[in-house]
Amino acid sequence: MRMVRIAVAGASGYAGGEVLRLLLSHPDVEIGALTAGGSAGTRLGEHQPHLLALADRVLLDTTPETLAGHDVVFLALPHGHSAALAAQLGADVVVIDCGADHRLVDAAAWSRWYGGEHAGSWPYGLPELPGARDALRGTKRVAVPGCYPTAISLALFPALAAGLAEPSVVVTAVTGTSGAGKSLKPHLLGAEVMGSLSAYGVGGVHRHTPEIVQNLSGVAGRTVDVSFTPVLAPLPRGILASCSAPTSASAGEVREAYEKAFADEPFVHLLPEGVWPTTAATLGANTVHLQVTVDHDAGRLIAVAAIDNLTKGTGGAAVQCMNLAVGLPETTGLPSNGVAP
Amino acid sequence: MRMVRIAVAGASGYAGGEVLRLLLSHPDVEIGALTAGGSAGTRLGEHQPHLLALADRVLLDTTPETLAGHDVVFLALPHGHSAALAAQLGADVVVIDCGADHRLVDAAAWSRWYGGEHAGSWPYGLPELPGARDALRGTKRVAVPGCYPTAISLALFPALAAGLAEPSVVVTAVTGTSGAGKSLKPHLLGAEVMGSLSAYGVGGVHRHTPEIVQNLSGVAGRTVDVSFTPVLAPLPRGILASCSAPTSASAGEVREAYEKAFADEPFVHLLPEGVWPTTAATLGANTVHLQVTVDHDAGRLIAVAAIDNLTKGTGGAAVQCMNLAVGLPETTGLPSNGVAP
Amino acid sequence: MRMVRIAVAGASGYAGGEVLRLLLSHPDVEIGALTAGGSAGTRLGEHQPHLLALADRVLLDTTPETLAGHDVVFLALPHGHSAALAAQLGADVVVIDCGADHRLVDAAAWSRWYGGEHAGSWPYGLPELPGARDALRGTKRVAVPGCYPTAISLALFPALAAGLAEPSVVVTAVTGTSGAGKSLKPHLLGAEVMGSLSAYGVGGVHRHTPEIVQNLSGVAGRTVDVSFTPVLAPLPRGILASCSAPTSASAGEVREAYEKAFADEPFVHLLPEGVWPTTAATLGANTVHLQVTVDHDAGRLIAVAAIDNLTKGTGGAAVQCMNLAVGLPETTGLPSNGVAP
Amino acid sequence: MRMVRIAVAGASGYAGGEVLRLLLSHPDVEIGALTAGGSAGTRLGEHQPHLLALADRVLLDTTPETLAGHDVVFLALPHGHSAALAAQLGADVVVIDCGADHRLVDAAAWSRWYGGEHAGSWPYGLPELPGARDALRGTKRVAVPGCYPTAISLALFPALAAGLAEPSVVVTAVTGTSGAGKSLKPHLLGAEVMGSLSAYGVGGVHRHTPEIVQNLSGVAGRTVDVSFTPVLAPLPRGILASCSAPTSASAGEVREAYEKAFADEPFVHLLPEGVWPTTAATLGANTVHLQVTVDHDAGRLIAVAAIDNLTKGTGGAAVQCMNLAVGLPETTGLPSNGVAP
Repeated sequence: MRMVRIAVAGASGYAGGEVLRLLLSHPDVEIGALTAGGSAGTRLGEHQPHLLALADRVLLDTTPETLAGHDVVFLALPHGHSAALAAQLGADVVVIDCGADHRLVDAAAWSRWYGGEHAGSWPYGLPELPGARDALRGTKRVAVPGCYPTAISLALFPALAAGLAEPSVVVTAVTGTSGAGKSLKPHLLGAEVMGSLSAYGVGGVHRHTPEIVQNLSGVAGRTVDVSFTPVLAPLPRGILASCSAPTSASAGEVREAYEKAFADEPFVHLLPEGVWPTTAATLGANTVHLQVTVDHDAGRLIAVAAIDNLTKGTGGAAVQCMNLAVGLPETTGLPSNGVAP
Repeated sequence: MRMVRIAVAGASGYAGGEVLRLLLSHPDVEIGALTAGGSAGTRLGEHQPHLLALADRVLLDTTPETLAGHDVVFLALPHGHSAALAAQLGADVVVIDCGADHRLVDAAAWSRWYGGEHAGSWPYGLPELPGARDALRGTKRVAVPGCYPTAISLALFPALAAGLAEPSVVVTAVTGTSGAGKSLKPHLLGAEVMGSLSAYGVGGVHRHTPEIVQNLSGVAGRTVDVSFTPVLAPLPRGILASCSAPTSASAGEVREAYEKAFADEPFVHLLPEGVWPTTAATLGANTVHLQVTVDHDAGRLIAVAAIDNLTKGTGGAAVQCMNLAVGLPETTGLPSNGVAP
Repeated sequence: MRMVRIAVAGASGYAGGEVLRLLLSHPDVEIGALTAGGSAGTRLGEHQPHLLALADRVLLDTTPETLAGHDVVFLALPHGHSAALAAQLGADVVVIDCGADHRLVDAAAWSRWYGGEHAGSWPYGLPELPGARDALRGTKRVAVPGCYPTAISLALFPALAAGLAEPSVVVTAVTGTSGAGKSLKPHLLGAEVMGSLSAYGVGGVHRHTPEIVQNLSGVAGRTVDVSFTPVLAPLPRGILASCSAPTSASAGEVREAYEKAFADEPFVHLLPEGVWPTTAATLGANTVHLQVTVDHDAGRLIAVAAIDNLTKGTGGAAVQCMNLAVGLPETTGLPSNGVAP
Repeated sequence: MRMVRIAVAGASGYAGGEVLRLLLSHPDVEIGALTAGGSAGTRLGEHQPHLLALADRVLLDTTPETLAGHDVVFLALPHGHSAALAAQLGADVVVIDCGADHRLVDAAAWSRWYGGEHAGSWPYGLPELPGARDALRGTKRVAVPGCYPTAISLALFPALAAGLAEPSVVVTAVTGTSGAGKSLKPHLLGAEVMGSLSAYGVGGVHRHTPEIVQNLSGVAGRTVDVSFTPVLAPLPRGILASCSAPTSASAGEVREAYEKAFADEPFVHLLPEGVWPTTAATLGANTVHLQVTVDHDAGRLIAVAAIDNLTKGTGGAAVQCMNLAVGLPETTGLPSNGVAP
């Protein structure tokens, strides 16, 4: 097969770096233009010292011209910057947007949560979600999910799809700090982060909330209420999502639903009964580790999912979707074993 | 006033060390016998190198004899070791148990969660809980609360006491690893803990669950269902408890209830509206940082509390209760400012 | 005694915050004006959430006027900002500069390392250095040492002063990230810092080098060559300085020299033989933990010192010097026990 | 080519896990028996949850019989356990020992540092060391170097081999905690490690010292004095070695020597001038990041090397040597890009 020629816009950031890290091990890809905003003109090695093989590549400006001539363009840009750029890329180019611009189907939800004009929605890049994979095969446009919605949707959809949980879910998800990107904000400084846990975006105000609602309501066939609390913890990568919903099902029924939902999924690993996930086991892998149980005293189903927010949560999902879009086997080039300890 | 002469059983562990750290700054205390189990005969400095002032103290065996002759004895022992020992200490001695042996009122709950015979319950050492402070003044016996129940009970009781939340709460609480004590278990090794988040004791099986149920049911006047998921995170100290419950109250009503509940509490700090707690701000302090809001989309009240699990969660609470028990001002010797960053 | 009325310029930063944390426990101090640069007009609680007792204080502009009317003014400003301001404060006011402006005696060294005009030198705030304490008693001006020079000078001076080591020292010192202050630089982001060790300022180019040379040459009575390599590590606070120099002395002679040097020092703790320091034991304390040995195979003396860079390395030293300057007992209000684990 | 059939003894530990992680991506390897000591009979997934592809493999006892029938046997055992076992494996089997048993050539040095009888030395598995690669091609026995000696030898040998540094080196090397293995020791607990830096094995008593002396003396052609201080830091993986030696050479001469030494080395990356290594950039990669300069004031050459102690420091080196031993291209299956941030 001919090599797939790719470009990455936003190559100096964490999402762009992760896409490149994975593509460097991809057997069917040739890495073309790397572009950036303020860092254009500098060497990639200054920003991504771990990507030795590309250290001397010079970053170009992010423009339709520099991105032209590639089969696939990955957009790893701040929210709100993808839509206008994507509109200037050819309709025959596969465009994979790691940002939020094309995730929400509902224009009103977009306005409420992000403001400005809705750019429309693209096929949603979570192949494991019922119905999603088919829409991704051969597509020219992909909206890569947010990292939290990835973990949370996979943790809860089998129960909701099977009618084993009530449509009112409560989630506290703990994340490493790379999820916030390379933003120079005081609360993201190492000295502030290490030794601390902090809640943020509490009370349903985090922008990933409507995306979780969209995913879960879609599979449940009715509106699912989502109470979502994100917590920042002192580690670079990893999300652990603690999810629950009222249930009257037995643990056995629930487990069966999860086993069935993920039986053929290469990247979702339902752990042996009684074993709970750790994010370390997913480091650098495109894998979800998952466990589920029922707390009969509390009348709730509890599901916990662990992912690497930069891999399955961003860059790995992007590459997985690229594989589907260009007709390669879905798992090509993607690691399923983590780096631990 | 005459100095209060104290002894600490279990001085080589984390809880015992924290009690001693705080007592070293207490103006009215004289530190007597320090005892240990397997470490008896060694210098305290080998186990607690940060406690310079006591470095050369030799640890005695933990026996009724070595603990005799003190006004106050702190028990910082593994669960199940306090009851028999306490029974051999004089009735006129103040005994403050940092373990679980005397926390649960319900003997059946004790049997179910801890097994063995119930040793009876002692006044519960969370003075901020309605009704608790009076029982602690002048008492000779104190059951220091668990670290999770401290954070969670304070985060939720004002809403439940005021009838502003339904008696069905969901909690995910993230903790630093000192909460597990100095246990030599593989999953507590630094290489396993750093860079990882892991859920444990999921599905209502953590032993702090019945204690939380007891506290919240007590203030609500009816049984409160508690769904509790603890998460281990890579930091030495700190608990961040993310708590929620269904509500139809307004944010204003809720805030008013919390302001009223904690108006006179020296160690509970309701943060300014919109500011969410970080555990770093509580490091080494006997302080709870708290925030609450209402998520109207999800129909839930969300309260988040941060504490230092070893200070307000264990050693600080023990000293606060000692002050009440011996008739000193409650805040004597206790820091309210944290060590940050 | 009348309360000492103090002001802090730069109260929103790490150094200013640590000075305030310590002064809040100081029995003889009254906290007056708190000033800042860009953060003037905001509440201190926004910047120092751990300092509950001062949370509602509003930060003033840093000007001679706002700082007037205090007995002691602490300057916790970026390097180069202290000299001009100090010149406008009354000659009868005690000014304690946590910055570098007045540390170097040699104007040529100042020009080479910092550029610009030398503002002159002030009494050097490391009382444990031979001769330094007397110059600090009753002084109106103090130059607080850099954090690295504090650890390194104390680790090495007894050997050099006693002629037990050759005047050519090699130091690698590892630090937590608060030493860099609250600077918004990419390499200080949590995601970059956690899980990484990095050398910086290598090859004798770190600005603390001339200060170390000055201190050690002073006690040795001849120029001491200093090879200094700083390393950034993933923790908020702490410096561990690994120092060595050629020696032909025995371990016994060396230990004796150190025991003698620090026999009466309240804040320098020479550990029992064979025990090596950990920074955790010094967290939040104004204490140096120290050990020394001789490696006969390599012909070198090895000394290792641990401090908290913000306490003994900055804020604690500032308060210790204030005590000397205003005539209080040197240890007043200063913790010697750390917060661990 | 026929697949290389491998076995791993000690598959439940950190070194064994890393060997397996790398072999899972190796195109020419088939993974056979996995053995353990106390964990025999359990699933690998209990010990290495990140190695999904092998999760259900049951660990066998470590015996000559279970290890028989493989082309290559990796020994990832505690020091002292390899020699007797290796003697029972066939002479035609490639045995790669990740332990120390066969690293030292000098029997007297072995006795002094490890005690007991010297098992003899095997070809030393650091192909980048002058002369080492040839001895590894086609060999049936490999002694994988220690993690510290790997970083330190590569950082210093070009200068010593070229006569550009005096044979008296000073090294402080900082390491993550996985270097100590999965030992259940109190000082390795997460709560002790996080937030702390500690020196250990100071004064030339760390067992890696004679190995460093052997390597550097070999290239220098005379005895090199080595002063080595290891420091434990709060991260799971990574070694940063800060190395120096007296020099009168210019920075240019030194750089030229390093460029020449590593010009054709696939796994040693001399960074652009002025850029200093970070361990994060090497995470999970078989790569050394290196920089060198001259501090003319101090008269010393300073070289800093960063590696992942489990990859290039152990498991990656083992696989690199396997490739040489069985006649595969040396880089087969080995990652050179790290996982960051």
